[in-house]
Amino acid sequence: MRVRVDGEVRDVRTVWLDDGIVKLIDQRALPFEFRIHEARTVEEVAEAIEDMVVRGAPAIGATAAYGLALAAINGDDVKAAADRLRRTRPTGHDLFHAIDVVLRGIRAGSSPTDAAESYAKDDIARCRAIGRHGAKLIKNRARILTHCNAGALAAVDYGTVMAPLRVAKDAGRRFFVYVSETRPRFQGSRLTAWELAQEGIEHAIIADGASGHFLSRGEVDLVLVGADRIAANGDTANKIGTYEKAVVAKENGVPFYVAAPTSTFDLSLASGAKIPIEERSPQEILHLEGRPTAPKESPARNPAFDVTPARYITGFVTDAGILRPSQLRALGTTAARRRTSPTKARKKR
Amino acid sequence: MRVRVDGEVRDVRTVWLDDGIVKLIDQRALPFEFRIHEARTVEEVAEAIEDMVVRGAPAIGATAAYGLALAAINGDDVKAAADRLRRTRPTGHDLFHAIDVVLRGIRAGSSPTDAAESYAKDDIARCRAIGRHGAKLIKNRARILTHCNAGALAAVDYGTVMAPLRVAKDAGRRFFVYVSETRPRFQGSRLTAWELAQEGIEHAIIADGASGHFLSRGEVDLVLVGADRIAANGDTANKIGTYEKAVVAKENGVPFYVAAPTSTFDLSLASGAKIPIEERSPQEILHLEGRPTAPKESPARNPAFDVTPARYITGFVTDAGILRPSQLRALGTTAARRRTSPTKARKKR
Repeated sequence: MRVRVDGEVRDVRTVWLDDGIVKLIDQRALPFEFRIHEARTVEEVAEAIEDMVVRGAPAIGATAAYGLALAAINGDDVKAAADRLRRTRPTGHDLFHAIDVVLRGIRAGSSPTDAAESYAKDDIARCRAIGRHGAKLIKNRARILTHCNAGALAAVDYGTVMAPLRVAKDAGRRFFVYVSETRPRFQGSRLTAWELAQEGIEHAIIADGASGHFLSRGEVDLVLVGADRIAANGDTANKIGTYEKAVVAKENGVPFYVAAPTSTFDLSLASGAKIPIEERSPQEILHLEGRPTAPKESPARNPAFDVTPARYITGFVTDAGILRPSQLRALGTTAARRRTSPTKARKKR
Repeated sequence: MRVRVDGEVRDVRTVWLDDGIVKLIDQRALPFEFRIHEARTVEEVAEAIEDMVVRGAPAIGATAAYGLALAAINGDDVKAAADRLRRTRPTGHDLFHAIDVVLRGIRAGSSPTDAAESYAKDDIARCRAIGRHGAKLIKNRARILTHCNAGALAAVDYGTVMAPLRVAKDAGRRFFVYVSETRPRFQGSRLTAWELAQEGIEHAIIADGASGHFLSRGEVDLVLVGADRIAANGDTANKIGTYEKAVVAKENGVPFYVAAPTSTFDLSLASGAKIPIEERSPQEILHLEGRPTAPKESPARNPAFDVTPARYITGFVTDAGILRPSQLRALGTTAARRRTSPTKARKKR
């Protein structure tokens, strides 16, 4: 992604491997400070995922891939590293997918670094394909509502929701994005707004509860969100608050699309009922940058994700095209083909 | 309301008139500091409403009533004072109702102070009646979801949503309240959680976007919210985010009730389409206690209320009983009767 840092334009990825160090844009510091976080051990990579230095299902997947490369570089046991990384966050699918892909690459003879690098490059290719397929949904003068951050920062680069927006912008279309701020961690107002501002895309931040107001008044043409895990029937886990937007969009006849790479699809799950929902620390709700937002006697509940049943989802913008929920099982065949011959499948695209 | 301040229990109202000064609990400081704000002129009363020292439709109504009394005490023109106070906030109905009632009382021969005092006492009586009628909705072991603050702090005392909860608690019932934190001003986590903690009622604060998660999992038995203005057909303006909860509650078969005194009903409006929606400063979204929550380039939209169509509302818990949306027009007759003879109507209750 192109970022302006102190007046200088840099082209940077969310995560990369540089001379035996996993480097990450520290997403906890944005938009106020652009700083690079360094992880030198598998444990430091795992903690960067847990502490949300990096977040977003595809970005977490690539970070874990680089974590395995780091394990090999440091002479650690790669399987033990995989176990540690798998325990970082339970909901997103890309984490598990990325670890499986890299381990498979190593077994097939790749160096761990090559396998990780190849995974990251594939992630970028998937996001670019999402952009090409999804751009047709972004009409001129469209008003789009999004939630959380499914931008370049949520992937290695380019983004999932942000990909069609970038393509449409480059094609000269003008449109407007409502950015739901996304409590408790403000990924909407801190990260998505930052990416949109960097790209010069018109937008406004709104409170999470305000989406319904704009949807009900006919002021939103399209809802486009990312995903953390998608079951075979199309049920979709994404950032807490997504489900409400989907229900209210349907109630108002507004199309609701999910943009996600095939790495986010978990076809081993028949439905969303079995997707584990991470419950994070109540402190994320009760404190903001160390200062309390509530009485000290009050507890909080903090589910980080919710599940949107497929019946509220108009379609999925994937690297394999735009698919209806009923068409997702076809991805299984593609995935199986890729598994047998990853290089061949990649060439086909 | 009973409040514990520095280990001492005090019985205090949200607003009162004391020796020519309108005194208010400063709701901007809660729950971290309990302090009393003093308004000595009509302008100071108007600013206290605008700056949200006091908020909540019934509390704003009573504050305006005391503002008129203050005008008379200070020798100001009472009609000009009424005009200034009417311009403070556009959405809630009680403000306009209270001003009309006090002006009528003065015309009928009351002293302005007596008219304001009588309005405040009536507000307390209305809230107590809401408590009596509504308590039957609060079953033992019920899990209730609320939004914003419709507690004692939103009225002169006792509250609207909080009234049935207090009665049910006093009757020995145990129940649990999900408190939606209510961005951008956190009236849920700052005020409702504070009132619940003061009363020893079990609760947990949740992000605004998390309501749907708990509703969809069968973990909420009842949604109970306040109101700022209710049209003749039952369409209800309330804090931004209410509409989404109503739609998602209906989708999941969870009853959705609105607790409000008759002073909040605006039977002059056929539907909610004509309720003016206040849009407050974007700074409420973009800053928190002076610190930014978003990039400096990003604008925000900040509608403070939304309108929930009557079709999503199971019933209204009012001082005149629990009513279906279709029964609201009957309140017109009651209101007309009260207008002719306020004292007589009051005795009847």
